[in-house]
Amino acid sequence: MKLYLVTDEKACLGRDLFWVVEEAVLGGVTLVQLREKNLGTQQFIEKAIRLKALLEPYKVPLIINDRVDVALAAQADGVHVGQQDLPYTEVKKMLPEHYMLGLSVETKKDVQEAEAWELSYLAVSPLFNTPSKTDTAPAWGMEGLRWVRANSRHPLVGIGGLNAVKAAEAVSQGADGIAVISAICSAESPRRAAQILLKSITNAALNP
Amino acid sequence: MKLYLVTDEKACLGRDLFWVVEEAVLGGVTLVQLREKNLGTQQFIEKAIRLKALLEPYKVPLIINDRVDVALAAQADGVHVGQQDLPYTEVKKMLPEHYMLGLSVETKKDVQEAEAWELSYLAVSPLFNTPSKTDTAPAWGMEGLRWVRANSRHPLVGIGGLNAVKAAEAVSQGADGIAVISAICSAESPRRAAQILLKSITNAALNP
Repeated sequence: MKLYLVTDEKACLGRDLFWVVEEAVLGGVTLVQLREKNLGTQQFIEKAIRLKALLEPYKVPLIINDRVDVALAAQADGVHVGQQDLPYTEVKKMLPEHYMLGLSVETKKDVQEAEAWELSYLAVSPLFNTPSKTDTAPAWGMEGLRWVRANSRHPLVGIGGLNAVKAAEAVSQGADGIAVISAICSAESPRRAAQILLKSITNAALNP
Repeated sequence: MKLYLVTDEKACLGRDLFWVVEEAVLGGVTLVQLREKNLGTQQFIEKAIRLKALLEPYKVPLIINDRVDVALAAQADGVHVGQQDLPYTEVKKMLPEHYMLGLSVETKKDVQEAEAWELSYLAVSPLFNTPSKTDTAPAWGMEGLRWVRANSRHPLVGIGGLNAVKAAEAVSQGADGIAVISAICSAESPRRAAQILLKSITNAALNP
């Protein structure tokens, strides 16, 4: 989950989502989340299956946002849930052992509660304010990220308002990876944007 | 599934959905489906849990539309899927044995395909054109219903544009039950509307 792409069709500036994702993967994206809030179930599954087939040869896992049923039907690699989605215990009941499970944390209470759970990562959300999502909780900021790092045993992914500079800073402050939407989806070259982000966080990890 | 209520908050004319459902159950509704297309997952689950608690004392099962994950999280009694929802085989994989599973059939091909499947019922949809749903397939009509009866081994529920007279006709032509939305949700007295519908279809079943 070093460089995690969360999809948003609207952020792709009219370009094909599958093209954007493949370019991003060629640029170094290591994990992809399909997020769809307005698609019918069958269309959502079809999109997930197509994305899974695209990612498989690159060994990049596919995470589905919110919908455990869609993740299972599409044989994706994991599920990401927010605080307003399915509760952890219910997801765990439905999800086979080998599936990844990520959780967004928006408050210190969320982080503390998650200590008891088996999770693949926590998404520290939003790390900064972002144009992609406006209904979010207050941003954690770097100080918040350090607090989460000190109080969580889980791998951490920073999300929200990250560019190459801030991404590097997040990694140097304890994030194991960063997740982006518009920084890649809306970039003129998603491949180049991914390369720059990856280089930036790799350097930050080597020289903390 | 003799008298099956499919909920639609918008059809309730501003009245509380839980009040409408309880009145309908007191009037004789035997099965309730919660259908929500625009709620977040957690809100959907909360509504389902509240509805399940309301229905439990009446021994009226709760069916969840489309979302297998929500049905499991809310410990509902079953799932209803349409042709645009999760595919049958995927639903079956996720759903414990004792859960009900209903399927909407819109074409003769849908009916024939469903012969190989284990289903609690087929919803013959729409039986007539209806104001509640405008994105539907062509209506089956009574001739279509007779064709489905002759070509399906499953219990049949007619849905779409049914009033007490048409409901009786549907039952006399082979439907095991009828499902309604606005005929109950939008009635001045949902309880009285349910009583009239139930009486009408019970008479029709006794005197085919």
